[in-house]
Amino acid sequence: MGIKMRQSFIAQLEELNNKVIKMGSILELSTNEMIDALDTIDVEKAKKIIARDDEIDLLEQQIERECINILAQQQPLATDLRKITSIMKIITDIERIADQCADISEYIIKLSNMPKTKAPADLGNMIEAMKKMVIDTIDSFVEADIEKASAVMEADDAVDKYFDNICKELSDVMQKDPSVVPQSICYLMVIKYLERMADHATNIAEWITFIVTGDLILG
Amino acid sequence: MGIKMRQSFIAQLEELNNKVIKMGSILELSTNEMIDALDTIDVEKAKKIIARDDEIDLLEQQIERECINILAQQQPLATDLRKITSIMKIITDIERIADQCADISEYIIKLSNMPKTKAPADLGNMIEAMKKMVIDTIDSFVEADIEKASAVMEADDAVDKYFDNICKELSDVMQKDPSVVPQSICYLMVIKYLERMADHATNIAEWITFIVTGDLILG
Repeated sequence: MGIKMRQSFIAQLEELNNKVIKMGSILELSTNEMIDALDTIDVEKAKKIIARDDEIDLLEQQIERECINILAQQQPLATDLRKITSIMKIITDIERIADQCADISEYIIKLSNMPKTKAPADLGNMIEAMKKMVIDTIDSFVEADIEKASAVMEADDAVDKYFDNICKELSDVMQKDPSVVPQSICYLMVIKYLERMADHATNIAEWITFIVTGDLILG
Repeated sequence: MGIKMRQSFIAQLEELNNKVIKMGSILELSTNEMIDALDTIDVEKAKKIIARDDEIDLLEQQIERECINILAQQQPLATDLRKITSIMKIITDIERIADQCADISEYIIKLSNMPKTKAPADLGNMIEAMKKMVIDTIDSFVEADIEKASAVMEADDAVDKYFDNICKELSDVMQKDPSVVPQSICYLMVIKYLERMADHATNIAEWITFIVTGDLILG
């Protein structure tokens, strides 16, 4: 590759990186707002999150096209090639996590139309654990930090444990007081989405590991 | 590209295509077996599906690596490049659908340990609609048939409608007879996975459209 071409390539890669980071910060915003909206059953905030989803979808499309263009124009090798193919995967996971913020927001709107019930006891803990995973996975991308990425992968078990606990609690609650079944179903769906968000954060962490080390951990 | 290199490239692409088709047929097998296992709450079959998941994961890793190798060695352009980057996305969706067969199988095992209840009325219809989407999306990849792919995308709404109906039914059932709450929670999770399977089939259909037409429909 000539020096000029190499320079333009480095500029393109940096631009790409910045767009992924931008997508990550919009995701962080939506995640934080979703957590607030769920806490207070805030319909206006929920609607805002749903509306923002288009922005993420658009960014995903742009980055996807840019990756394909770079592959075609620059024909990168080794680490650069790994980085670009991994970014193509990472943006899908970011987009899915954002989708799940929007999906949870739909359930917040449903909950707002029902008599208010107590949120499951472990919901706050589950949210905290998931949020940390999402933020840490974006950070580990920005910093190419595989130790942080590895911590994200390990944290997933705790989220799954909270999911099981809350499922059990909601099951007991519904059996004792069938009048709260509709709300409990909403919370069941919410925790399913939270669990999926953590799974996608784990996927991203796996791709970051692949970028840095070349080791493919899929499954 | 020289003739020899072009020939080796065509062979590599064909090999890649065959591996995706192989992954698709294992997925079809798991989908069909999962449907049978759910119908009869067959624990042995459920365990077999869970065990088979490793095979799909391994194939995904192999195909992923092959795609990256082809990108590095052959530096393909235009349609070939689109095809390879799309295959990298498609195999993720195939792997996720297989995951969801395994996830449903876990709930089949849970259901087998509870008193037997009636399955939701629309479950059979939802399963039929989802199954058709999965099979048609694999077919449309094999045949590069964008009309079939487009029919898959349109079919997703019907699956979502069944999801809503069954949710409502399970909500009523639990309110009338709280003793079946645990089984109903299992069925809620099962239909959530079925709905996700249809979503992933839709994703694959979108990628097939992209391979053939170059139009990116993400979101």
